[in-house]
Amino acid sequence: MIQIAVLGYGTVGSGVVEVINTNHESINKKAGEEINIKYVLDLREFPGDPVEDVLVHDFETIINDPEVQIIVEVMGGVEPAYTFTKRALEAGKCVCTSNKELVARHGLELLEIAREKDINYLFEASCGGGIPIIRPLNSSLTADEIDEISGILNGTTNYILTKMAEENADFEDVLKEAQEKGYAERNPEADVEGFDACRKIAILSSLAFGCHVDYEDIYTEGITKITVEDVKYAKGIGMSIKLLATSKREDGRFYAMVSPVLVGQDSPLYSVNGVFNAIFIHGNVLGDAMFYGSGAGKLPTASAVVGDVVDCAKHLHRNIMMSWSSKRLERMDIKDVEHPFFVRIKGSMTGDIGSVEEVFGKVKTVGVPDVAGEFGFVTAPMSEAAFEEKAAKLPDIITRIRVRA
Amino acid sequence: MIQIAVLGYGTVGSGVVEVINTNHESINKKAGEEINIKYVLDLREFPGDPVEDVLVHDFETIINDPEVQIIVEVMGGVEPAYTFTKRALEAGKCVCTSNKELVARHGLELLEIAREKDINYLFEASCGGGIPIIRPLNSSLTADEIDEISGILNGTTNYILTKMAEENADFEDVLKEAQEKGYAERNPEADVEGFDACRKIAILSSLAFGCHVDYEDIYTEGITKITVEDVKYAKGIGMSIKLLATSKREDGRFYAMVSPVLVGQDSPLYSVNGVFNAIFIHGNVLGDAMFYGSGAGKLPTASAVVGDVVDCAKHLHRNIMMSWSSKRLERMDIKDVEHPFFVRIKGSMTGDIGSVEEVFGKVKTVGVPDVAGEFGFVTAPMSEAAFEEKAAKLPDIITRIRVRA
Repeated sequence: MIQIAVLGYGTVGSGVVEVINTNHESINKKAGEEINIKYVLDLREFPGDPVEDVLVHDFETIINDPEVQIIVEVMGGVEPAYTFTKRALEAGKCVCTSNKELVARHGLELLEIAREKDINYLFEASCGGGIPIIRPLNSSLTADEIDEISGILNGTTNYILTKMAEENADFEDVLKEAQEKGYAERNPEADVEGFDACRKIAILSSLAFGCHVDYEDIYTEGITKITVEDVKYAKGIGMSIKLLATSKREDGRFYAMVSPVLVGQDSPLYSVNGVFNAIFIHGNVLGDAMFYGSGAGKLPTASAVVGDVVDCAKHLHRNIMMSWSSKRLERMDIKDVEHPFFVRIKGSMTGDIGSVEEVFGKVKTVGVPDVAGEFGFVTAPMSEAAFEEKAAKLPDIITRIRVRA
Repeated sequence: MIQIAVLGYGTVGSGVVEVINTNHESINKKAGEEINIKYVLDLREFPGDPVEDVLVHDFETIINDPEVQIIVEVMGGVEPAYTFTKRALEAGKCVCTSNKELVARHGLELLEIAREKDINYLFEASCGGGIPIIRPLNSSLTADEIDEISGILNGTTNYILTKMAEENADFEDVLKEAQEKGYAERNPEADVEGFDACRKIAILSSLAFGCHVDYEDIYTEGITKITVEDVKYAKGIGMSIKLLATSKREDGRFYAMVSPVLVGQDSPLYSVNGVFNAIFIHGNVLGDAMFYGSGAGKLPTASAVVGDVVDCAKHLHRNIMMSWSSKRLERMDIKDVEHPFFVRIKGSMTGDIGSVEEVFGKVKTVGVPDVAGEFGFVTAPMSEAAFEEKAAKLPDIITRIRVRA
């Protein structure tokens, strides 16, 4: 029997307990041994909940119990999760987590402790919720050099953008509705400003490129400025607006960015709607691949955490190599990154296209019937720096959105 | 250094050699040791090809060399691949393969030999080409009870169906074009009759359900009867026709079938086009997930085979448990399986809808402007048996296609 402890009985923690109880028979079979929840740590009481039997309030009870071999950290936030995780690993206990803040900030250090101790620190649930992506990156796509990993990594913003497109509704209205339905937090900043996606793409890039990508180095732009007019133009050119986290490697240099991007129908990311997430990968021999699924939610996230528990059980005293290393790739200046841009500008298509093409060269124009006094156009691919320089010459520009090439 | 041998220097075999040469640095790092191709077995000569240095014509050279620890079987077909694989495993050598015929027919037996010898028989490339699916099923989705695994598992037929829809072209014309471009074999039967997809869904079902699914038990219908008119109706109802391999488990019973199916835009399978493949999974806690990528092709397939070689190298004398067992699930009679049906019938919508609804109850009608003298309708969900009984009462029915519920 393998004894485990769950730190935190919130949404994910209670999901982990539920999943282990629901599927115990098949889980034990796959783990090769019975998995038993010996402790659940939480500061709160849960009167009447069956968890009461195993509930403890003091981490010392867990860390000092030599029977506990696997610890599930689903507290969220950096502290005390960091201290507890570090102490657990140093005591030779495996740790599985869904905590993206902690993995993005201290993942490298915690993985190194696990490696030294020949145990495991696993975090499948930290990126893409239930979507298996960390383990495939680590143990399936090993024949490839991965040159791109990009994804729709935040369910809340994808839900908002999908609703805006479906209902021709404004950002603020959809956000309010999402908050009422529980799809968005009361303080939605981490989601709508792109910070959540930023941490996830930092983790995924580190694993895909076998180096260390600092989330603070990633250019991040949220969806708060996207309007219903933008969404109408997107439909007009047969594209959809997604909050895309993109990371690319070229000739030993890389860049990563999070921003709203127009995605065309030829991309499998185009039709990833609602709270679903998807992660796109390009490998130098594999070509294109995409992983799609529930990016958040109690049970999908718990499914990924428990999958890690099973993997830990199968490798109790054997480190599963992860390619995340302290090596740093040279960062490309975001100003050098090239893509087409979609632009909205005040004026009339017939009257003002001349001055636009004088600055941008040949562009593809687009008009939307019920948006008057302006028009839109898509430029040829150009660097961010070149775009900014040109755009400065046209004071009537309303907005610009990057286009996935 | 780990010595390997490659059996077969055809498309996939030469791809394996190319991938190992191209990415040798990162592959060796991930394997933890240098991977060296000591032998390539083929009956043919390859004058001037660098493979000449390691080319052998006799399997005995390989099986009798104790240095060879991993064998890559990419010959295709059942014999001599079966004999070679069995002898290799019995001699304690790991085997990696892309050979779906062999895995579907003898996978259970070969996996059991590998288990006894504490080595591995891996076949990631046998289903879905480069798409990581076997390993995620085996080591990521372990917290779930999987109740559905369905997929677009054959690139040739998906290419043909996509082209038919894009160009309003007939099956025969697109098949001819696909043959000229090398996307379809000169003898296309295994693809267009669904036999290839059938073998793959048998393998995937066996792993997903932890039992043995015999491919000969799977109802299989190909795409040869799909016409350009069917494709036009599909567009008329906002759906696309896919050759879908579906396997579902309910209350300890299961069914699997391969057939053309109308898929709606709310399914992520809808927009899987061209030679791409995708595998959809539903788990009882995970919910929906989908894996997308190149289902065939020299390098994507080789990427999956070499990923298996790396995994074998990391687990040289340690069996990676696979859940495929000799247990058999009770099969559901395909006649009891329920879904809506799309039907084309001779007549006029206004004149004949009465007699249709007398038989089928309320249906959703659809007309296509340039297809005269007939109309289409979609029934409520009903069993195959009920549909057949009702359809027998309407002699003017032209065709029927199942609809994904």
